[in-house]
Amino acid sequence: MTHKAKLDGEDLYLDDLQVGQRFATGSHVISESEIKAFAAQFDPQPFHLDDEAAKRSIFGGLAASGWHTAAITMRLLVESEPRIAGGLIGVHGHISWLRPTRPSDVLTVESEVIEVTPSPGKPDRGHVTMRSNTRNQRGEVVQLMSFKLLAKRRSPK
Amino acid sequence: MTHKAKLDGEDLYLDDLQVGQRFATGSHVISESEIKAFAAQFDPQPFHLDDEAAKRSIFGGLAASGWHTAAITMRLLVESEPRIAGGLIGVHGHISWLRPTRPSDVLTVESEVIEVTPSPGKPDRGHVTMRSNTRNQRGEVVQLMSFKLLAKRRSPK
Repeated sequence: MTHKAKLDGEDLYLDDLQVGQRFATGSHVISESEIKAFAAQFDPQPFHLDDEAAKRSIFGGLAASGWHTAAITMRLLVESEPRIAGGLIGVHGHISWLRPTRPSDVLTVESEVIEVTPSPGKPDRGHVTMRSNTRNQRGEVVQLMSFKLLAKRRSPK
Repeated sequence: MTHKAKLDGEDLYLDDLQVGQRFATGSHVISESEIKAFAAQFDPQPFHLDDEAAKRSIFGGLAASGWHTAAITMRLLVESEPRIAGGLIGVHGHISWLRPTRPSDVLTVESEVIEVTPSPGKPDRGHVTMRSNTRNQRGEVVQLMSFKLLAKRRSPK
């Protein structure tokens, strides 16, 4: 079950995070013009830019760049509660694109804490690994991410 | 040693790719205004948007969003020779951010083929796994990626 964090509106420290906690974001409607503008700047391939070329491609129609889906996912995560103290700072992780993101898709992200690791050497920090599923309006997962993030620890009392 | 592909200017099919082949891209100079514009749209955290806040953060100064570095890497890959037949279409992969990307950094990407896998069931396609290092003007690796891409096979004669 997805629930709001206990500390609603407050920053979460490593000490507040537990395996199995889940968080949901708001939503973003991706427009055709956004898809083409992102592609023109960062991923200028025909199936992200041109409807006719996209129909003839493996995507069978205009599809957003996977990096665009990833960037929108980041935006949704950054804007949603709860906030990780110190910010969302990724170290490394894995990303899969399972389905194309299409014009007018409504994207939302659901995340789950899958690992919490205090730093053995640095008592003020650690890492949290989050798995984030980005879904469209039909509930289909378009992107799976699993990333290790920095997280601050609370100062010892 | 990094070398140009044998088939300069032609599309590469799975059949043309071998483990150990290396490819280099052109370069991109990332400006402070680009860093802030990308962050405002996709990763609005203080250390990507505001110089003073960035100085007080773990980055110690303005840093590009990791997703911005990834998007520029994609642009450099898409624009460089050789081209993979059918386009650069990622399925899944791993990404690590090793160092911040800073204003005025000059980014280049070097890629190496690390696996070539014909599809067991579909004779017209397969996968190629490429490792791509994104470096700054001092040769420091800012981002490591390893992604599995779709690749077409040549039609049987």
